[in-house]
Amino acid sequence: MIGRLVIVGTGLIGGSFALALKAAGQVGRVAALERSPQALARALERGIADEACATPEQALRGADLVLLAAPVGQTGALLASLLPHLEPHTVVTDAGSTKCDVVAAARAALGERIGQFVPGHPIAGSEANGPDAAWAGLYGGKKAVLTPLPENDPAAVERVAGAWRACGALVHTLSAGDHDRVFAAVSHLPHLLAYALVDDIAARPHAGMLFQYAASGFRDFTRIAGSSPEMWRDISLANRDALLAELDAYLAQLNSLRAMLAAADGRALETVFASAQRARQAWLDAIEAGSPPLPPHRDTE
Amino acid sequence: MIGRLVIVGTGLIGGSFALALKAAGQVGRVAALERSPQALARALERGIADEACATPEQALRGADLVLLAAPVGQTGALLASLLPHLEPHTVVTDAGSTKCDVVAAARAALGERIGQFVPGHPIAGSEANGPDAAWAGLYGGKKAVLTPLPENDPAAVERVAGAWRACGALVHTLSAGDHDRVFAAVSHLPHLLAYALVDDIAARPHAGMLFQYAASGFRDFTRIAGSSPEMWRDISLANRDALLAELDAYLAQLNSLRAMLAAADGRALETVFASAQRARQAWLDAIEAGSPPLPPHRDTE
Repeated sequence: MIGRLVIVGTGLIGGSFALALKAAGQVGRVAALERSPQALARALERGIADEACATPEQALRGADLVLLAAPVGQTGALLASLLPHLEPHTVVTDAGSTKCDVVAAARAALGERIGQFVPGHPIAGSEANGPDAAWAGLYGGKKAVLTPLPENDPAAVERVAGAWRACGALVHTLSAGDHDRVFAAVSHLPHLLAYALVDDIAARPHAGMLFQYAASGFRDFTRIAGSSPEMWRDISLANRDALLAELDAYLAQLNSLRAMLAAADGRALETVFASAQRARQAWLDAIEAGSPPLPPHRDTE
Repeated sequence: MIGRLVIVGTGLIGGSFALALKAAGQVGRVAALERSPQALARALERGIADEACATPEQALRGADLVLLAAPVGQTGALLASLLPHLEPHTVVTDAGSTKCDVVAAARAALGERIGQFVPGHPIAGSEANGPDAAWAGLYGGKKAVLTPLPENDPAAVERVAGAWRACGALVHTLSAGDHDRVFAAVSHLPHLLAYALVDDIAARPHAGMLFQYAASGFRDFTRIAGSSPEMWRDISLANRDALLAELDAYLAQLNSLRAMLAAADGRALETVFASAQRARQAWLDAIEAGSPPLPPHRDTE
C-alpha cells in the first residue's frame, strides 16, 4: 500500500500507473506534477490524480513513492529539482526505455541519496499518449523490469516491485547493462530498421507506385515506424553503444545474406529462413504456453 | 463467363479462385490437375473442383482458362506438359509472386504459342495453405496485377482480367520488370530483413533471454518471418537482380543511419524517423480514403 504517490507526468505511462493502483486499492492519494495545464486538468477530471502540485516541494511532502513518467531526457533535471525536498523515506522510480543513461543521470543528480532511486521500465505502451490514453489495465500481464542499484535498500526495491505487481505486471530484475543490450536487440534495432525501410522507399522517385502495392505484410513490418520520432531519437542516442553493436551484428548478417543471394545459394538462404521461422514459432509457442495474455493477432488479410 | 476452368494446384490460391468464380456464377465447370491425392480429394469434397483430371490432355479438352497455382519453380515444366494439348482458344495465366522469371520460362516452354499465356499475380495470401484454407472471399478488394506480353491478344488479357474482377479483385497492369522491382522493394526485401533479424537473434548465446523480452512490436515486425522458407527461397532466387538492388539501397541507408548514430547526430536521426513516420501515415490515410496514395514528398528540412 502506497500512502502518497507522486506521478511526474500524467500521460499514458504515469496515468495508467495511478489508475491501476487506484483500481487495486493500493494507493491512498495521488499527487501530480505536470507541466502542461491541459494535461493536468484532464488528469484531475479523469480521477488519475487527486491533487495538482505547483512545486516539487508541495508534491514531495510525505510522499512514499514518486514515478518519473516524463521524457527520459529530463530525468537528471527532474531529480535535481526533487532532491532538496526528498524526505528520507521516499522512494523514486522511473519508467524510461533505457537504463544506463538514466542511472548515470540519477547518480549525477542525487549524489549520496542515489539509494533512494530504483530504476525501472514497464514493457507496455501504445502509439496513443496523454491522460486520455491512460487506463487501469495497461500493465496487466506485461513485464516491468527493475534494474536495482547496489545502493538500493531491499525494502525500497520491494516498494517499487510491489506497486508494479499491484498494477498486474510481472516484475523482472536485470542489470542496467543487460537491460540496455536486450532492448537494443529486440526493440531499438527493429525500430531503426523499420524507419530506415520506410524512409528508403519514401525517398524514391516512384515512391507513390511502391506504396500503392505495399500490402499487409509491409504494414505490420513497418508498424513501429509510426512511433514518435522524438522519443526514438532520444532512445537511440541514450542507448547508442548497445544499439551500434546490434546494428553492426545485423549489418554483418545482411551482408552474409547478400553474399548467399549474389551466389544464388538457395540452400544457404533456405537454412537461414527456416532457422528464423522455427525460432519465431518456438517463441510464439512459449508465449502461448507461458502465460501473459496477448491480444489476438490478425494473421490473414 | 468461363465455360471450363482448369486449376493446376488446388491450394489456397487456385482453390479460392475457383470458389470465387463459382460464387459469382462466372464459371461453368472446374477441372483440377493436382499432384497430391489428399489435396485433390479435399478439393472435390469442398466443391472447389467438379472434376479430377489424371492428365493434362483430359484437363485441357475444351478449356477456356487455365490458372497455374503450383510453386512458381514448376512453371516451365507445367507449361511444357500442357503445350501439346493446348487448344487455340485456351488462355493460360498464373499466380506467381515473380514475373520476369515466369515470362522467361513461359517463352522457353511455349515458343510461338506464348501469346496464349497472360502472366498474373494476385496480391493476396495468408500463412495458411491447402484446399482447406481456400475461400471465395480471398481476393475481395485485393489487387490482381497482370503483366501482359506484346504477343497477347487483348481479348485473352480481358478474359483473365474479367475473371479476377469477378473474384472481387482490382485489376492493375504493369510490365514484368516494374512488377518485380516494385515487389522486391515492398515485399521481398522486408521478408529478407525479418528473416535476418530473427535468425540474428536466435543465433546468440543468450537468445532465450532476448526472446523473453521481445514484445508486440517485435511480433508484428517479424510476422512475415513466419512464412514458408521454401517459397521465399524460390522468390529470392527468381527475383535476385531486383532484390540485390533493393538490398544494396537498404544497406546504404542503414550505413548512413549508422554514421548518424555514431556521430550522435540526433537532428539527422530525427529527420529520417520523422520523414518515415509521415510517409507511413500518408500511406495509411490513402488506404483509408480508398484512393491510391500520392507520391509522398520527402521533407529535407
